Amino acid sequence: MIPNAVKQAWAEGRPTLNGWLGIGNPFTAEIMATAGFDSLTIDLQHGFLDYSHACTMLQAMRASGVTPIARAPWREPGIIMKLLDAGAYGIICPMVNTAEEAADLVAMVRYPPRGNRSFGPTRVSFSAGANYPAEANDQVMVLAMIETGEAFANVDAICATPGLDGIYIGPSDLTLGVTNGRLPSGVDRTEPEMIDTIKAILAAAKRAGIAAGLHCGTPAYAAQAVGWGFDMVTIAADTALLAAGSRGAVGQARALLGGGAGAGAGEKASGY
Amino acid sequence: MIPNAVKQAWAEGRPTLNGWLGIGNPFTAEIMATAGFDSLTIDLQHGFLDYSHACTMLQAMRASGVTPIARAPWREPGIIMKLLDAGAYGIICPMVNTAEEAADLVAMVRYPPRGNRSFGPTRVSFSAGANYPAEANDQVMVLAMIETGEAFANVDAICATPGLDGIYIGPSDLTLGVTNGRLPSGVDRTEPEMIDTIKAILAAAKRAGIAAGLHCGTPAYAAQAVGWGFDMVTIAADTALLAAGSRGAVGQARALLGGGAGAGAGEKASGY
Amino acid sequence: MIPNAVKQAWAEGRPTLNGWLGIGNPFTAEIMATAGFDSLTIDLQHGFLDYSHACTMLQAMRASGVTPIARAPWREPGIIMKLLDAGAYGIICPMVNTAEEAADLVAMVRYPPRGNRSFGPTRVSFSAGANYPAEANDQVMVLAMIETGEAFANVDAICATPGLDGIYIGPSDLTLGVTNGRLPSGVDRTEPEMIDTIKAILAAAKRAGIAAGLHCGTPAYAAQAVGWGFDMVTIAADTALLAAGSRGAVGQARALLGGGAGAGAGEKASGY
Amino acid sequence: MIPNAVKQAWAEGRPTLNGWLGIGNPFTAEIMATAGFDSLTIDLQHGFLDYSHACTMLQAMRASGVTPIARAPWREPGIIMKLLDAGAYGIICPMVNTAEEAADLVAMVRYPPRGNRSFGPTRVSFSAGANYPAEANDQVMVLAMIETGEAFANVDAICATPGLDGIYIGPSDLTLGVTNGRLPSGVDRTEPEMIDTIKAILAAAKRAGIAAGLHCGTPAYAAQAVGWGFDMVTIAADTALLAAGSRGAVGQARALLGGGAGAGAGEKASGY
Amino acid sequence: MIPNAVKQAWAEGRPTLNGWLGIGNPFTAEIMATAGFDSLTIDLQHGFLDYSHACTMLQAMRASGVTPIARAPWREPGIIMKLLDAGAYGIICPMVNTAEEAADLVAMVRYPPRGNRSFGPTRVSFSAGANYPAEANDQVMVLAMIETGEAFANVDAICATPGLDGIYIGPSDLTLGVTNGRLPSGVDRTEPEMIDTIKAILAAAKRAGIAAGLHCGTPAYAAQAVGWGFDMVTIAADTALLAAGSRGAVGQARALLGGGAGAGAGEKASGY
Amino acid sequence: MIPNAVKQAWAEGRPTLNGWLGIGNPFTAEIMATAGFDSLTIDLQHGFLDYSHACTMLQAMRASGVTPIARAPWREPGIIMKLLDAGAYGIICPMVNTAEEAADLVAMVRYPPRGNRSFGPTRVSFSAGANYPAEANDQVMVLAMIETGEAFANVDAICATPGLDGIYIGPSDLTLGVTNGRLPSGVDRTEPEMIDTIKAILAAAKRAGIAAGLHCGTPAYAAQAVGWGFDMVTIAADTALLAAGSRGAVGQARALLGGGAGAGAGEKASGY
Repeated sequence: MIPNAVKQAWAEGRPTLNGWLGIGNPFTAEIMATAGFDSLTIDLQHGFLDYSHACTMLQAMRASGVTPIARAPWREPGIIMKLLDAGAYGIICPMVNTAEEAADLVAMVRYPPRGNRSFGPTRVSFSAGANYPAEANDQVMVLAMIETGEAFANVDAICATPGLDGIYIGPSDLTLGVTNGRLPSGVDRTEPEMIDTIKAILAAAKRAGIAAGLHCGTPAYAAQAVGWGFDMVTIAADTALLAAGSRGAVGQARALLGGGAGAGAGEKASGY
Repeated sequence: MIPNAVKQAWAEGRPTLNGWLGIGNPFTAEIMATAGFDSLTIDLQHGFLDYSHACTMLQAMRASGVTPIARAPWREPGIIMKLLDAGAYGIICPMVNTAEEAADLVAMVRYPPRGNRSFGPTRVSFSAGANYPAEANDQVMVLAMIETGEAFANVDAICATPGLDGIYIGPSDLTLGVTNGRLPSGVDRTEPEMIDTIKAILAAAKRAGIAAGLHCGTPAYAAQAVGWGFDMVTIAADTALLAAGSRGAVGQARALLGGGAGAGAGEKASGY
Repeated sequence: MIPNAVKQAWAEGRPTLNGWLGIGNPFTAEIMATAGFDSLTIDLQHGFLDYSHACTMLQAMRASGVTPIARAPWREPGIIMKLLDAGAYGIICPMVNTAEEAADLVAMVRYPPRGNRSFGPTRVSFSAGANYPAEANDQVMVLAMIETGEAFANVDAICATPGLDGIYIGPSDLTLGVTNGRLPSGVDRTEPEMIDTIKAILAAAKRAGIAAGLHCGTPAYAAQAVGWGFDMVTIAADTALLAAGSRGAVGQARALLGGGAGAGAGEKASGY
Repeated sequence: MIPNAVKQAWAEGRPTLNGWLGIGNPFTAEIMATAGFDSLTIDLQHGFLDYSHACTMLQAMRASGVTPIARAPWREPGIIMKLLDAGAYGIICPMVNTAEEAADLVAMVRYPPRGNRSFGPTRVSFSAGANYPAEANDQVMVLAMIETGEAFANVDAICATPGLDGIYIGPSDLTLGVTNGRLPSGVDRTEPEMIDTIKAILAAAKRAGIAAGLHCGTPAYAAQAVGWGFDMVTIAADTALLAAGSRGAVGQARALLGGGAGAGAGEKASGY
Repeated sequence: MIPNAVKQAWAEGRPTLNGWLGIGNPFTAEIMATAGFDSLTIDLQHGFLDYSHACTMLQAMRASGVTPIARAPWREPGIIMKLLDAGAYGIICPMVNTAEEAADLVAMVRYPPRGNRSFGPTRVSFSAGANYPAEANDQVMVLAMIETGEAFANVDAICATPGLDGIYIGPSDLTLGVTNGRLPSGVDRTEPEMIDTIKAILAAAKRAGIAAGLHCGTPAYAAQAVGWGFDMVTIAADTALLAAGSRGAVGQARALLGGGAGAGAGEKASGY
Repeated sequence: MIPNAVKQAWAEGRPTLNGWLGIGNPFTAEIMATAGFDSLTIDLQHGFLDYSHACTMLQAMRASGVTPIARAPWREPGIIMKLLDAGAYGIICPMVNTAEEAADLVAMVRYPPRGNRSFGPTRVSFSAGANYPAEANDQVMVLAMIETGEAFANVDAICATPGLDGIYIGPSDLTLGVTNGRLPSGVDRTEPEMIDTIKAILAAAKRAGIAAGLHCGTPAYAAQAVGWGFDMVTIAADTALLAAGSRGAVGQARALLGGGAGAGAGEKASGY
């Protein structure tokens, strides 16, 4: 079985760079896979895509050697096991709030005796190389998202879950959760209280000897987070790159051309 | 019928900004459609997409009010008429080399008596508003690409074709064509001989009283081209935005983190 | 954020007309969206479609201004949150049987502090206009289906659930449920006992100050239901319109032509 | 090989009823296939669909026993042969203007020695039953559309083409073509000059001993056309059935409810 | 309603042959459907496919008359009811471990009063013939998979569940489960302890008067299992047939050609 | 640019093994890509697939290192250039009958000055590695199919076409063509006259110093053809492997079980 390069990097103390895929398309995935990320995460929770899109995306990313991760839509065994059978080397699971939920999650991604994952590596047996049945339990990784007030209260217990490879922080939900909606959503938090919260979760992971990941909006913030000790940082997302890039190009062109250009189209969007 | 805002802008002397769609996906099209372009061109020639992708892209772009254009894969009546029936307000046709070919092209996009387009606006009758059959001949526009040595030699005759709304220059093919492969392909040409060639085509269009468009790689070059007199400039493409954006993010992050980061994945073609 | 026109209409005392989408296709959705319905509901429970179809349907409906609703396949947080992120302005949830289930449902569609919806409006941030994060809790609506004997017994408690915008009655399941299969399934019930049941649910909604919707098979029955006080009535479904229309056309033609016409095809299941 | 029931009906003097598929979806095709049509024609010319949609539609129609026909996007051998290999039992080809073009068309649908169709019945060998290679030349039918002024002038020569099974009239294009745009497009013509033109084409077909088909908009007009002698009449289209049905339902409901109902949504469509 | 031929065969004491579909494609399903299997099972658990693929597969299999079965991804009501509405005549459900779970499962596939399946046979009402609502409870079958240690301990209680039509054994998971990972996964077990376990489950099914199915890898093993008393045996899977067939062809050719042939491609993961 | 391993093998005198893809699915392509073929040809002519399917297939095959070839639907520049832009390293073109047609074909696949391929390697610039624009003219290969009587008469002239890399023989069409339908279609010909014809074409290719390929049905015949001197032999096709494998399994099982087994399904076309 081809080894999980992200797990290897962590074992050797090297942090990894993750990209985020919210567009359900194999070509955008293939383009992103040429950019040099260590891993790419297909977002089945909030991305505009589902398992059927993930299938072709996993295939299109394969040649690049980037480690394929999937964020599950929810802590549900059906879809999580399907994503592993489809070729994902890692699962990021949203909204893990208790140690019991974390243990339940870990069991979904491990074959007996270490869990109750059902056996049937239909596609991954073609893509992951030989000996998958014997090695998958060691190579596949699972990260629990800490992003609610309840999860924050239980963070040490969650991190202590046997078999859990790491935690992953989504700052938007975490902020809404721990402040109960007092602070607005968003990544790359700068409020001291949120930085403290994020660092506290990181510290819990470190105490438990597992990895910690953080969802960032920019390379600069991500580099800062690596400085704090994070092992995995998400530095860019396909949707944001495309939206920012296209808006930037139009803005730059209109600025260069002055007020006289354009049909005015695009400013009168209607509909839902 | 909803008027063609690009044609209106040109009639009023305002240049228009075009975006380029080479990814066959409705969500990337929808994101690009929020960026403020006057028009978006679905590239059925070189884009990694075909008519079946264009269908959902046209639907996803509709709410934005951006003018939908399609570059046809070739000067073939079947696909060109299909694209119009699907909702395209403009056709950019590659490799138009003679006045006869230009006339043939114009005929494909006009109902009798102005051409021989076959009647059957199956989707566009829902999307373009009422009275499409009567107004389409005036609202739909057609642009011939001038991009070979032969076309350059015939440029005045092509531009004089009755019913042709404009020409569109693809600098990569034009350069390969007029230099017979001596200069490499690429947009945003800076060689004096190529700038002269581009300006000569522009002048021919102006003499004939039709519009001129140029495929550019950056807003800066596009603004320069508008200064030369171009009516339509393509300033950005989805594939390039995504590739440049993702590579830039990774590069920035690796620079900030120094040499110790990363699993090294993505630098080798190995696959999972 | 573009306001929810259906909620506005209800607030002003105007009933709304809903159409039903059981065909997984963006063009059928786009055609239906031109017909003048106030809302269209994509049926992910019984429709021959899933989330991947709903994506392109939501995009194709957007330009029309019709309010997009989704019926969830089941009371599951993963898919319900995905549908909201994809652009749905309302969720109809089947088989809500207790007040506890209703509260659980409401929490899925509201961000903290009013619920535990996870944050990540990937597509809807492009389609719903600005300020979605702040306004979604007020604009997104959620309707619980009352369609079992248990739900009927708990109807007042369900309707009293804080944050629930309304209930929706599916007469087929309701009939099977409250009669325990004694009466056959079907909409547009005429039995006094079923009309009484339907009116009792309506009265409970009115007592609780929330909206009530009814799934009808014809405009005539729907108009009658509006007369009873219903705020939202489904008056037509794509599958039924197409089946009835095509069968009607064939029947009319065969009647006009007498017995001598036809190859007899379509009457036997044989295949080519 | 399963016999072509439409050809059999014509041979026995029975006219056949055809339905029209412009929606690119297997479920709409499957619904239409239950309605009792003798044949269904997938419209690859003006329908909002292409070959990739036709594949699943042909599969979904198979069980019904309805005879599958495809209208080609244009007189191009690549796509016409692909449609036959995919399972179509008949080809309707647009814009056949001369006897030479008709002969070229016929050759595309017959294996040597009767034509130059290339051999490779990849899917149809599974769907059409045994012995396809030997019987296809007899069972597959090809109809040339007579719909331009030039075609009308050459109608006898076209009809005399060896191997041509029939002609098919598209009244919209025919009207635009023979009047050079003087009369508007549309089916179910009532002008005496157009009825005369249609009957003249019908007469030419009868003189040549081949079948004649007419594209109609209603069963009533179609029945009239059968009375004139047409062998095949199209009586309904999926898009028109759905559009008319949905608009009718909304109109009926709004009429019953008076002016007070509705969110006003759907009346403010924008976009292209 | 078209009767369930598999249930009929079992009632008459005839074992049935099942094929397995793990490729999400209607053409592979259609090809498999011509091979003479009594039933084909679309594997939504481990197959590289989901509901959206199953839709077109069910349509493509319909003409063959093969009984369509679906293995659900998990014991979840949303997807199980959707599969029935889409046309499945049987459900195989993984990981049923207790009698309570089995009763819950049975309820999902039966309308009241025999269960709580929600009513809405959107596609199956077109494909299954008339009277589906009244007959579905009798024709649709449901099989519980016995494949864990816990399930094995509860096998008699599970088999005694009213309404359960049968059990189905997946030897890979069963082996991992009952040996807690001591023996490796795989079908066609030859260890006495596993054969004893399989026979014990079979005996429990027979005591309860329900059917028993076994997932086999070869016709030979399957025939042996029929000899033991199994009612349903899976004898082949699309992925295995294609993988074995293609590897076999290459191996045979290379053997015939000796060492001098070939570009060596395919032996390294490198990509183009 | 990653070199064309098939061209390299031929240059070194090693024959190559080709597999054939007629199923439009990325997973079947990915499975076939693991089998050890030197090249895989996506059949856009007779395969049940088109360009939209080829896109995901090319992506799924990429990691394997197998050389991707496409058979074009016809000698049309639009689709042939699209296939190259999508990543194909070779084009097999059907029905090339004259030297003029062959020269036209070669021009479609070469950039100026060696042809008139239009520039826009949208996807292949991501998949083929660096420097594609400069090296593609040397790495991309083009094969003309010799499969009609006319082509056979012109075989030396065709083979002498500058830039043509080789010819490819389709025995089914060739047989129909040169015997004008006297002999039935089919591969693996054993008639002396057909073997002579095949060998004559091979000899012409050898005289011209270009490669020769033959479409075979079995490894055994293919090995024989290599012995005759063929450089490239197709030894298996996905559809045939799946059909033969599944029928074989059912046949073997029924033989083992005797007459008492089975529901009899699959033997009649009836449908559910």
